[in-house]
This record gives sequence, C-alpha cells and structure tokens, in this order.
Amino acid sequence: MPAVSSSDKVLSYEKVAESVKRAQYAVRGEIYLAASERIKKGEKVIFTNVGNPHGLGQKPLTFPRQVMALLTAPFLLDDPRTATMFPADAITRAKTYLANIKGGVGAYSDSVGNPYIRDEVAQFIQARDGHAADPERIFLTNGASEAVRTLLRTLIRGHMDGVMVPVPQYPLYSASIALYDGCFVGYELDESTGWGLDLVKTKASLDAARARGLCVRGLVFINPGNPTGQCLSRADVEALVRFCFDNRLVLMADEVYQENVYRSRHPFTSAKKVMCELGEPYTSGLELVSFHTVSKGVYGECGLRGGYMEMCNFDPRTVEEIYKICSINLSPNVPGQVAVGLMCNPPRRGDPSFDSFMAEKAELLASLKRRARLLTDAFNSLEGVSCQETEGALYSFPQITLPPAAVAAARAAGKAPDVFYCLALLSETGLSTVPGSGFGQAEGTFHFRTTILPAEADMGEVVELFKRFHKGFVQRYSGPVAKL
Amino acid sequence: MPAVSSSDKVLSYEKVAESVKRAQYAVRGEIYLAASERIKKGEKVIFTNVGNPHGLGQKPLTFPRQVMALLTAPFLLDDPRTATMFPADAITRAKTYLANIKGGVGAYSDSVGNPYIRDEVAQFIQARDGHAADPERIFLTNGASEAVRTLLRTLIRGHMDGVMVPVPQYPLYSASIALYDGCFVGYELDESTGWGLDLVKTKASLDAARARGLCVRGLVFINPGNPTGQCLSRADVEALVRFCFDNRLVLMADEVYQENVYRSRHPFTSAKKVMCELGEPYTSGLELVSFHTVSKGVYGECGLRGGYMEMCNFDPRTVEEIYKICSINLSPNVPGQVAVGLMCNPPRRGDPSFDSFMAEKAELLASLKRRARLLTDAFNSLEGVSCQETEGALYSFPQITLPPAAVAAARAAGKAPDVFYCLALLSETGLSTVPGSGFGQAEGTFHFRTTILPAEADMGEVVELFKRFHKGFVQRYSGPVAKL
Repeated sequence: MPAVSSSDKVLSYEKVAESVKRAQYAVRGEIYLAASERIKKGEKVIFTNVGNPHGLGQKPLTFPRQVMALLTAPFLLDDPRTATMFPADAITRAKTYLANIKGGVGAYSDSVGNPYIRDEVAQFIQARDGHAADPERIFLTNGASEAVRTLLRTLIRGHMDGVMVPVPQYPLYSASIALYDGCFVGYELDESTGWGLDLVKTKASLDAARARGLCVRGLVFINPGNPTGQCLSRADVEALVRFCFDNRLVLMADEVYQENVYRSRHPFTSAKKVMCELGEPYTSGLELVSFHTVSKGVYGECGLRGGYMEMCNFDPRTVEEIYKICSINLSPNVPGQVAVGLMCNPPRRGDPSFDSFMAEKAELLASLKRRARLLTDAFNSLEGVSCQETEGALYSFPQITLPPAAVAAARAAGKAPDVFYCLALLSETGLSTVPGSGFGQAEGTFHFRTTILPAEADMGEVVELFKRFHKGFVQRYSGPVAKL
Repeated sequence: MPAVSSSDKVLSYEKVAESVKRAQYAVRGEIYLAASERIKKGEKVIFTNVGNPHGLGQKPLTFPRQVMALLTAPFLLDDPRTATMFPADAITRAKTYLANIKGGVGAYSDSVGNPYIRDEVAQFIQARDGHAADPERIFLTNGASEAVRTLLRTLIRGHMDGVMVPVPQYPLYSASIALYDGCFVGYELDESTGWGLDLVKTKASLDAARARGLCVRGLVFINPGNPTGQCLSRADVEALVRFCFDNRLVLMADEVYQENVYRSRHPFTSAKKVMCELGEPYTSGLELVSFHTVSKGVYGECGLRGGYMEMCNFDPRTVEEIYKICSINLSPNVPGQVAVGLMCNPPRRGDPSFDSFMAEKAELLASLKRRARLLTDAFNSLEGVSCQETEGALYSFPQITLPPAAVAAARAAGKAPDVFYCLALLSETGLSTVPGSGFGQAEGTFHFRTTILPAEADMGEVVELFKRFHKGFVQRYSGPVAKL
C-alpha cells in the first residue's frame, strides 16, 4: 500500500497548474497514445500522425551528414584515410565550422546561436528574397517550435491577450496559447477555395474578439499550410501583410514548409519579401517574425531540432527581452544549429558534392509531389470523402461525411465523431492519423490529417487499407448518409 | 525615419509580458553582455562565467564521439575502411542504437525520449543506487534545464505558489519561477560550515512563507552545489528527504554534478538511494525528481543538450500531464539523447575501448581536482578574499571584502558593489565571471563565481591576472578596509 494516496500527493493531478491541464496537443494525443499501446503489444502501426520523414524511412541527404559526422569526430580530420572516404568540400566545410564554432559541437554557443551560422542564415534569406537580413535579428532555436513558444511567451501578458490562429491550425499554437494563459482567436480558412484566406471573415473575427474586450496582438499564418496544404499567392501574402499592419497585429509567419511546394501555380513568397516590396509604412512598420526549420523541406531532420526565427521591425528592447529568455536555456543544441547552417548554405555549383546533392534533393521533391497527388486522388475517388489538393507541405486533410448512425455511436462512446473514426481506422488498419478536431474545423464538418510520407513503395498498400476501411465503416453504419 | 516609433509598436518593451521582464539570468547577464562586446572589438575574454568545458579547450571523450559520428553518417558502417578507423565496440554500439532508434538521429523520437535509451538510464540508476528505476518515469530532455523548467511549469499554479531554493542558487531556478509567476522562497546555506545545510533556518524560512499565506510546494537542492561547490554528507541528504516529506514538499534534486566530486570525505549519494533506504513512509511517499545531464561530469557535452529527469512517487495522472507538455515540443534532440545513453552505458571491462576510456576519464577528473585546489588556495592567499573549498561541481565562489570607498563608487555608478567589481575585473583582465548577486548571497556580503575550467596550462596566468587586479582594486579604493 502506498504511503500517500494519489489525491493526497503534493503534486496530485488536482493540484497541477490549470494552464498545463488546459493545453491540448492532438498530434501526440489520444490516437497517438493508442498507437503506442499497439506497438507495445507488437501490433503494426503506420505512423502518419506527424511529419517525421526519417521515421518512415526517408534517408538523410548525404552531404550535410558527412559534414556533421566530421564535426562530431574531429579527430577524423587528422586521419589520412578520411580524404578517401569524404568529399573534399565536406572536409573543407567541417574545418570552416570548427574554426568558427569555439569548442565545437560540445560547447554551449551564444544563447541565440553561433554568430557564423546566423550569418549563413542571413545570407540565405537575402538570396531568397533579394532583401537584406540582419543576423542580429536571427535567433537559432531547438526546432521552430521553440521559437514559436518563445515569441508567444513574450507576446501574451494574460488571459485578455488574444492571438489569431487559422482554423484548421497546427496545434502547437493552441497548446502554447493555453499554456501561457492567452486567448485563442480563430479565423476560418475557406475549404471551398482550397483552404483560401478570407479576410472579410477574418476581420469579422478580429472585430468580434475586440468587441469582447480582448487585446488581440498577433496573427499566425502557416504558408504552405499545415494541416491544409495550400500555398498562398503573392497577392494573398500582400493582403495579409496589410491586414496585420493596419490592424496592429504582430505577424507570425510559419514558413517551415517553404521548400515543400508541389505546384508551380503559387511558388513560395516569403512575408518578408512582400513586406520589403510593399514600401512604407509596411516595410519598416510591420512587426514580422518568420520561422523556419531543418525538420521539413527535403532535409526532414526532425531529430536534430534545428530551427530559427527572423524578427523584423521589433522594438530593440523587446529583442533584448527575447534574448534574455533564450539565455535561460543557455544554448540551442549545436548539431541542430549546424544543420540549419548547412540547409542555408548547401554545396554550390562546381563543388564536388553539388551534382549528387542536387540529384538527391530533386528526386525527393519529385517523390513527395507524386505521393501528394496519389493521396489526393485516392481520397477523392471515395464516396463520402472530399480532399483539397496538397499544393505544399507534407499533409493531406480530407473531409469525411459520416453516416448519422456513426455520429450517434461516437456520441454514445463519449467521443468526437472524427476521433471515433480515426480510432477505428487505427484499430482496423494500423494507420495512425490525427482527427480534424485536433486542428479545428468548421462546425459540423469532420476531417483527419495524414502525412504524405509513407514510402512510395508502401503507398499503394496505405491507400488500399484506407479505402477498404472507409467503405466498411460507412457500410457498418449504413442507412441514409447525410453530410452533417 | 521609421514608420512606427519603438514605444508605439504592438510589442513594444512596455507591452512585453511582465513575467518575462521580471525573469533575470545573471550567468548570461550584464557582465556576459559586456564580455561579448569586448569580443566584437577583438579584445581578449576568458569566459569563466559558465560551466562550458569544451568552450575552454576540454577535448571530448573519444568513445562516445566515435559512436555518435557513426550514427550521424550510418553509410560509414557499409565502408570496409571503417573497421580500420573505429574500434569494434564503437561500431557494435552504433549498430545497436540504429537498430533501436527508428529513423536514426534524424527522426523525432517519442516526446519523452527513445525507449531503449530510457532503459539504459534506468539501468545506470539501478547500478548506481542499488535500487530499481522505472524507465517509464524517466524523461529525456534538451539538457537538464528543460526538465527543471517543465517540472516547475507543472508545479506552479500562480503567484501564491512558492518554491524553496537555496541561497546562493543557480539562477535557472529564480528565472523560471519568475517566468511562471511563482514565488521564490530562499533558504540560506551556511558559508561558515562550507555552505552547509541549516535545516533550522530552512524551517524558519518555510514557516515564515506559509505564515504569509504562500502555498510552498517544492524544494530545490543542488548537490554537489552550484555555485557553492559543497558535497552533502549522506546524513544531510537523509535530513533533506525527511524534511521534504514531513513538510509536504516535492524534492527537486539537482544532481547534475554527481560525477564531479574531488574529495573522498563525502562521496556522492543520490536522494533516490537515501529515500529508498530510509523505509516508509519516505520510500514510497516522498515526491522526488532528480535531474542529470551530459553537460557536466567528465563529458562536458554542453552543446549536445542532453539531460533527463527521474520522477519517483508521482501521481500517475500528473506524469501524464508532464508527458503532454513534453509532447508539445515533439521530441528532445536525438544526438543529445544518444549522448545520455552513452554516459549511462559506457564501455565495460573487456571492451576494446575500456582502458583508453577510463584513462581519459581519470586524467580529466584528476585535472579538475588539481584546478579546484589551485583556485581555492589562490583566493585564500589574498587579503580580503576568503573561499570555501570546491569539494565538487565546477565552480569557486569566493567572498570578497570591498573597501567602503569601492562600495560608495559602485552605488554612485548605480551598480551593485559585486557587479561593479566584476565589471572592473573584466575590463582590466578579460576575466568574465558572475557576481554573487546573480545567485543570491547573505545581506552585506559580496562574492563572485568563477569556473575551475581554464586549461591547467592557463591557470597560472588566470590566478596572476586575478591577484594583480584584486590588489590594484583594493589599493585604488584604499583607506580603512571593513567587512561590509
């Protein structure tokens, strides 16, 4: 018998901070935990709940890993055999990093990242946008998630401060806002226009929140979209920049999928570039922060936890406060920083690794594009399923029409209907997805998110598993099928 | 002219969250920023402000880095030359990790760390203490700092919740408590007994806080001490365990310096071991969390950001809440997790790398011990300086007696006297230290913290620089010298 019962404990569940209890993170929520239980029982799971490319078999790009291996074991640089095993540019690059990272990957860097790597990021942004970037305003972090949290932590003063977040959204935002006791102000994307921006409705949502007395201070946009997969046109980004400046909102541009664009219709245009080209008062007036990472794109280096944020037009004293918050964590992990540097400064034409590096990248992007197409088409071939095209990012977010009997059965089981559906999908096929309610969805609609990341060789099986499940599920709850 | 003046900005300094502004972190505070400015101007700085061994030239241990290099570049395992360049046990270990880490270092792991590595940690704890450890209660994190923050985040419900922290303390605690809007409840260590624990005074501090209406919920102890360098006797750890249980406090045992013990008088004894051996009600009644890291010890792998916490006797539903908070961050960085695994599961007798690994470790520990002795003696040889022995950890924390004129000059400059002293030390010698006020110190006393980490070859110069500075400083503010 335990000396102290659970509810008598100093830190019993009842006495856990309320903000912690309120925060929900569906990507690793109920379905994920059920999937983990399956794994423990030795049952098969296909994890399509989280954008984790290497976890589903994607190989790392060779060049960055060569450089990182040499940095991890610098004594290899003294071994003559190394020159026969590693390309010359990987060796040169490793030596350059070692010369610019005092103490190597085992030493704390400056709290906001190594200055040499921050310069590499600034040059990458400048080359991408055609506008200067200030390395002093680029902070490196343990993945972009940490950057997002730090910014929200600084922005949210209490429960009357609101942040506008798209619906559907990536639940990092809702969870962090809850954790910092802020107020989530959703604005719906328009599924009928491929998850397009609707600034009239967005303005109505802002006005309503302000009329309720909320101090709405920031707006998040995810481009390309997660979980929605849309890519913004340049005109849309312009409208967003104007909207945020005109309405006194800090624009938080989640641009972590900027390399994951599969259609030429809307090539990626950064909010920074648009802001710079709109002229005043936007160019030096909009408070803009942009997030990027090595976890997505063609790198997919999720486990390295490398990311950055670029802050534009921020009050210098606010930047100092953000710096101070970063300093409490001492230093972002250094291998992740190096991965960011290598992403921003890849091999150049003429370098020994250039051709193979570009070939690896191109093949991977082409494969992602094929998989995105395949999934969209498969979903749209099914009765009761409709799916917007995955123009970018790593997800498919189909809408499912559930029979009334299924909805009733879900309610009887105390589950949201989409959670009920995703649990059945997991239990019958091993496919681990995330229900739409974890991201937010228009009232009365049901969705789920799956990544496009299963290997191409496995994709046929995934599609077949899904089709068979969906048809069986609908049949089981047969009767008049209505869009709810 | 900017379109928007700083104070009109949405996120102007005035509108930054108050908890962010309140948090202070002296280890990277005013002196550190002044030192960074010197670096930019090309002036010399010896960074002894933070325990960052590799940053001051310490070489990484060879075996763990060999394994990590192979994990970073798994294609090396297919190259026959690898067997001639890496020892067989490093190759075997890399293959074992690859078999147990799905997707390798580039994939997100479970949010609380890879299960295989959590097992390695559990076995390490069991071998150290002679008592079982539950891998399900061991969470891997980006350095121990993140674990500390997560625990405090869960514990602190609002400004009436207090956490007891030693004075002097490591400012991660005060900064995090401020950030989570909690209340810092200090308890003074006794400098005259080598920074010993004084539970009578500690109880008085607790009673006073509770009489003020605070709900004091936790107590932090750092053993071996930071910045104070003392090692607790087993009897002291026992008293602490009893004190926390009897007073309904979660014990947060910061044991990150457990390998850094330089005197045989008090070998490290973990709070877990003592709790297990005290019997009931302590063994299954005390809510204990212990923190450890790869950043300290003889690894000194600060840049890899690997750490863990072990929770004992926690309410299972509270553990679930902590798990959820970790899941928002998706995954601790995987190279850091591997480093934790290698620290907990080093080469064993009979393995090819065993002898060289043990020799590297022994030489490093011996050198740290010599440096600790050298600094303590040097400080005690100076008039107006007294220094407790560094029995463990990586710091020396001398008390300095400042001439009244120096105190007056500091006040006139708007600085705390110890900050004034440390700024002068930096400007005259390049030595970057941390003033005692950043850690807390008894009213009217002045201290500073320096690491014992400058290379042995540089230590003579460091000591000379300091001696010359101190004598000059005292002379400059000459007149009657009084202990203030």
